Amino acid sequence: MRWGLIGASNIAAAHMMAAIRANGGEIVSVLSASPERARTYADEHGIPEGHSDLDALLAGDIDAVYISTTNEKHFAQAMAAIAAGKHVLCEKPLAMNVADAVTMVRAAADAGLAFGTNHHLRNAGSHIAIRDLIASGRIGDVLSARVMHAVYLPPHLQGWRIDNPAAGGGVIPDIVVHDADTVRFHLGEDPAEVVAMQTTSGMGQGVEDGVMSVWQMPSGATVMAHEAFTHRFAGTGLEIHGTKGSIRARGVMTQRPVGEVILTTEAGEEAIGFSDHNLYIRSIGLFVEACAGKGRPAADGVDGVKSLAVAAAVAEAARTGQRTAVDYGGI
Amino acid sequence: MRWGLIGASNIAAAHMMAAIRANGGEIVSVLSASPERARTYADEHGIPEGHSDLDALLAGDIDAVYISTTNEKHFAQAMAAIAAGKHVLCEKPLAMNVADAVTMVRAAADAGLAFGTNHHLRNAGSHIAIRDLIASGRIGDVLSARVMHAVYLPPHLQGWRIDNPAAGGGVIPDIVVHDADTVRFHLGEDPAEVVAMQTTSGMGQGVEDGVMSVWQMPSGATVMAHEAFTHRFAGTGLEIHGTKGSIRARGVMTQRPVGEVILTTEAGEEAIGFSDHNLYIRSIGLFVEACAGKGRPAADGVDGVKSLAVAAAVAEAARTGQRTAVDYGGI
Repeated sequence: MRWGLIGASNIAAAHMMAAIRANGGEIVSVLSASPERARTYADEHGIPEGHSDLDALLAGDIDAVYISTTNEKHFAQAMAAIAAGKHVLCEKPLAMNVADAVTMVRAAADAGLAFGTNHHLRNAGSHIAIRDLIASGRIGDVLSARVMHAVYLPPHLQGWRIDNPAAGGGVIPDIVVHDADTVRFHLGEDPAEVVAMQTTSGMGQGVEDGVMSVWQMPSGATVMAHEAFTHRFAGTGLEIHGTKGSIRARGVMTQRPVGEVILTTEAGEEAIGFSDHNLYIRSIGLFVEACAGKGRPAADGVDGVKSLAVAAAVAEAARTGQRTAVDYGGI
Repeated sequence: MRWGLIGASNIAAAHMMAAIRANGGEIVSVLSASPERARTYADEHGIPEGHSDLDALLAGDIDAVYISTTNEKHFAQAMAAIAAGKHVLCEKPLAMNVADAVTMVRAAADAGLAFGTNHHLRNAGSHIAIRDLIASGRIGDVLSARVMHAVYLPPHLQGWRIDNPAAGGGVIPDIVVHDADTVRFHLGEDPAEVVAMQTTSGMGQGVEDGVMSVWQMPSGATVMAHEAFTHRFAGTGLEIHGTKGSIRARGVMTQRPVGEVILTTEAGEEAIGFSDHNLYIRSIGLFVEACAGKGRPAADGVDGVKSLAVAAAVAEAARTGQRTAVDYGGI
């Protein structure tokens, strides 16, 4: 499959290009707003075409685009790609608001194109093992979940994420969306209402750099989540507690296939093994198959709308101090 | 010191009588609403006098009372004991509302009597070690705390706690007060505002059996807390994260001197040792000294008012869905 990269980004360089190539894909072109950056990035990464004009990139011989520009650009770029008949794999959050995300996802469906959201975590062997434990009844009915995802944003990513609300900066659009997708993946249901408090602890300038929230699930389970850019030594974790057992995972809210998963039941503690495959290679593989009409992306467009909707509700709850219903935009 | 027990309770039998006697105290009398229960309990535990009339107990030759009746009785019993010139050690929550608790605590102060609240956790070697790490600057400025205190209420305690709101049942009065006291002990500041969601997952009948809340601290730190009666395999935990390090403790939200405390800093992970002394013996020891005019109880009356105030705010926030300021009743 032939790909165009919309966005000459860190994540494309660090993970996605290798994953595309590992799946036999060819990276034909890259787009950057700066012609010089487009050319340099293309040269550095062995990409034939560097563009600063989206129409020129879309006019090329490509089947799919991977969008990893700043968040406020996703909507127009995805709509243009869909209009040009390209399959779309888009970074999270899909858009600056739920309505735009719904429009993108419906446009792709109407055009018969595949649409994927690049939520990496549900591709991890650790998370697949956790979901399988839950689905197989090992912990009984789920009572609660806790998501510990307060990390330290590395200096090379401390750009628009920490000071540009217009580009979708802040920890809520950046990390809460991942946690929303992960909890939906594990529990098989969508958060109904949330309460939240956000913080600004010195790193965020005009955007939040930490947030804690509580989510009510339709089953009666509740979820608490903590995301931050400011925590150097907290590690990450996920716990899911049920009537018959508890799952405690450490170091699993990450891009790498690492961490540990412990199941505790009446029988005692058990370390759960899991596959250490590359998350992004799996994600791209499923997306490529979906483009060929087989199966669905690991996280599809509806998943991307829903993770954005939860993050938007968390942001509103933090701003207003009110318990806030999650508005999924009718999808 | 000569003691009267107000309440022929499980906790007096399981922990407090032994702790009083270990401190050289003499248990003179016990009160139960049922004369038969008073007599049986007195006989079983080697207590000379069993009373069903509070005035009769207070007329005896005692210096102090330990109050462990159901919560709605604490106020009148404490006020009567103070009027009779007795020092008071009272179970948490001190009363059914903050105003009553303030009245009790002020009455004891006005009478020159010691007043203690039986928050056991701040007596634990683990928690003293955690507080010392924070106070000595090992984790820098505190950014956040997480309290994991979802346990399974043992069948012998599944009485009024799970079905009697008029007696102060529910997980918020029972456990949130302890977590509020513990966080105040560690961070040295009082929660300002809270948001919360509560659950009823099958055990609670007319009262909540689980709650998740987020607290804003004046320093800018935030706290998330999870308490429940319904979690069999979750264990307990406390994490405090700072700019220079993180403390992760497991199995420390308990009456026993157990658990583990791990400090993570730039230098790596370090297991922190701590004293395994009996929590209640230490608590009684400090209270006895306070009665003699030396020092203060581990948790005094003001601490008891404040832990109740946080729990009351969490309950109101869960009920209304609104961000709720903690009202400390002017104390």
